[in-house]
Amino acid sequence: MLTINDNFLRLAPSYLFSDIARKVADYRGANPDAQVISMGIGDVSRPLCDASVDAMLKAVEEMRHAHTFHGYGPEQGYAFLRQAIADNDYTARGIDINADEIFISDGAKSDTGNIVDIFAATTKVALTDPVYPVYFDSNIMAGRSRSSIEFMPVNEANGFIPDMPLSEPDIIYLCYPNNPTGTVLTRHQLAAWVDYALEHKSLILFDAAYEAYITSSDIPRSIYEIPGARKCAIEFRSFSKTAGFTGLRCGFTVVPHDVVGYDHHGDKVQLHSLWLRRQTTKFNGASYPVQRAAEAIYTPEGKQQIRQTIHYYLENAATLRLSLIDSGLTVYGGTDSPYLWVKTPKGLSSWDFFELLLHQADVVVTPGVGFGNAGEGYVRLTAFASHENTAIAARRITDLLK
Amino acid sequence: MLTINDNFLRLAPSYLFSDIARKVADYRGANPDAQVISMGIGDVSRPLCDASVDAMLKAVEEMRHAHTFHGYGPEQGYAFLRQAIADNDYTARGIDINADEIFISDGAKSDTGNIVDIFAATTKVALTDPVYPVYFDSNIMAGRSRSSIEFMPVNEANGFIPDMPLSEPDIIYLCYPNNPTGTVLTRHQLAAWVDYALEHKSLILFDAAYEAYITSSDIPRSIYEIPGARKCAIEFRSFSKTAGFTGLRCGFTVVPHDVVGYDHHGDKVQLHSLWLRRQTTKFNGASYPVQRAAEAIYTPEGKQQIRQTIHYYLENAATLRLSLIDSGLTVYGGTDSPYLWVKTPKGLSSWDFFELLLHQADVVVTPGVGFGNAGEGYVRLTAFASHENTAIAARRITDLLK
Repeated sequence: MLTINDNFLRLAPSYLFSDIARKVADYRGANPDAQVISMGIGDVSRPLCDASVDAMLKAVEEMRHAHTFHGYGPEQGYAFLRQAIADNDYTARGIDINADEIFISDGAKSDTGNIVDIFAATTKVALTDPVYPVYFDSNIMAGRSRSSIEFMPVNEANGFIPDMPLSEPDIIYLCYPNNPTGTVLTRHQLAAWVDYALEHKSLILFDAAYEAYITSSDIPRSIYEIPGARKCAIEFRSFSKTAGFTGLRCGFTVVPHDVVGYDHHGDKVQLHSLWLRRQTTKFNGASYPVQRAAEAIYTPEGKQQIRQTIHYYLENAATLRLSLIDSGLTVYGGTDSPYLWVKTPKGLSSWDFFELLLHQADVVVTPGVGFGNAGEGYVRLTAFASHENTAIAARRITDLLK
Repeated sequence: MLTINDNFLRLAPSYLFSDIARKVADYRGANPDAQVISMGIGDVSRPLCDASVDAMLKAVEEMRHAHTFHGYGPEQGYAFLRQAIADNDYTARGIDINADEIFISDGAKSDTGNIVDIFAATTKVALTDPVYPVYFDSNIMAGRSRSSIEFMPVNEANGFIPDMPLSEPDIIYLCYPNNPTGTVLTRHQLAAWVDYALEHKSLILFDAAYEAYITSSDIPRSIYEIPGARKCAIEFRSFSKTAGFTGLRCGFTVVPHDVVGYDHHGDKVQLHSLWLRRQTTKFNGASYPVQRAAEAIYTPEGKQQIRQTIHYYLENAATLRLSLIDSGLTVYGGTDSPYLWVKTPKGLSSWDFFELLLHQADVVVTPGVGFGNAGEGYVRLTAFASHENTAIAARRITDLLK
């Protein structure tokens, strides 16, 4: 008799964004004329940059002819892309990461979800609260008990900087610039975490999917800017928000050769070799034309084009932030991040404010409580809409709160 | 202290095709003038069909403009592709599978590897021997004990039809047309497995990645042609060999609503809901332009073009098969499959024959023992090379064995 992985039954029955999508669909159904503006799910609105489109068109055309056709590529990704990343995102910034420490994938969501495969189910995990749901759910699916997962609240009281964990966790998930709060860690603050991990032989899973939005000079763009991080951190990156790849699917994960775990004899094992084994067994590489599109963002034209798009979204964030503050709302994030973390007015619950904004302003946001209990009383807004829609949404919210 | 998933240490240290790649690279390094022909890894040589290239170019161009840009798609795949598959691969053949039972992915390797996520680690598994290594390795990674995995030998004695398992497995992996042996199951033979699964409340994981190569009329192209299979089978399909998508990455998995497992209370749970939860949590959909390329193979032009390519490879298989038989070799497969399973001459081991063919004929094959102990004494040849290289390789092998 086939028994299922019962841990799935410990999960909340459905995924946050599906719930929101259903509510929005119901509302649209009942109000077909409503001009609903989505600032909920973190999807982008600007198109792919020309450099990437052109590179991808060329790569697709290559697939038409036998002598330029590309079949199976390396599971770890093509050398051309791994090298471009190493050169531009790391070496050029004085960071010691080599191309063979970079694993190309179909996106950071897959990697942050699948990484649990390489750890013992008995490891203790620490997550922030609120948190990107994938970290928690993937750990539950993997059989980790609720009691071995510590939530570290981030809130106004601690300035959205988690206090050091109490449970001596083996694995610490950090996402900065943070999803959902849009807050950041300074170099000094992140260094404290690296020191903690080195001292406790724990691992930091550092999600840097939003690093391209950092504008302040004291905010590290990679955890490997911090001395010692090569020994205790895996970094996840995404082209989704950096370059509009949400629909193309490409990201990468950095696993330095120096970062180790321990087997049941207490012997060191390189996490690099484990992740390589995981990916070569259960993954078959990212799409070749997509990897060419990703490579193109590291050309001079590509760099300039994606910088413009990020600038565009950061302008949205600034517009939205000022407007919401003018309306009397308390706002976090939005300066080094595409996300704004907005305190609900009058003590409304997250879902009540979500419903209010949907029904009275035709604006979709994400209820903060969907990211964890400590997110109650907040909603997340994204800066990924168009200038026009951002301005309209800001005005509607202002009018509503007058 | 970070402890690793020790099950990784129970795996053979590296993956079969990496070993072969290294040996071939060494040989090429030592013999730079050798015209090495690869019939080892199952990669295709014919380019992508025009219908897919054209559809993908159009989709990539859409990504350039805000009003036609596609961001995040549904994790389960776009409706346009799920419907095209349901209509053409199932409904048109009188098979009862609906679009919402189809999950689009980045390839069958990912899905056959990741599917273990939804089962209890205590389930018993049966695999054929020889077998596609991903099935075994992914089960070991998931913590399944070696003693809970039964190998069902397929060999000359049983005509490459596995005997019914002895361990009453909960999960049975079947791959037909088979990788690596190239052999098939008739409708009658497959029905016996469906009956077994229904009787024992077990699940068949049916890998039909090579169904497009079936030419004989009594060979089912889908397990759902067999009455009752909707209740006991998950089917994996790939566009890799059907339409040359090895480098694009797209496949799909069919999880009928009727197929269930049991939780620890003995209550039924739809596997569809578990796989949906797994995919929405740890996957973010296949690339949009790639899904458009896949949709195009279901157009009249696309169908004709991929049929031509499959015909091309089947001609290779026929050429190779006859030539090897003329050389006195015993050959299985190659009529409803792109794979030929060739008995080594003079009782050579798989690796000895591999080395002989590499060093004396400049032909790369896959040692059968790499797929399991019962593969010892065989090598696998693929029909995916060009006509020219297939003819040259056949001649070189014939000359070598004279």
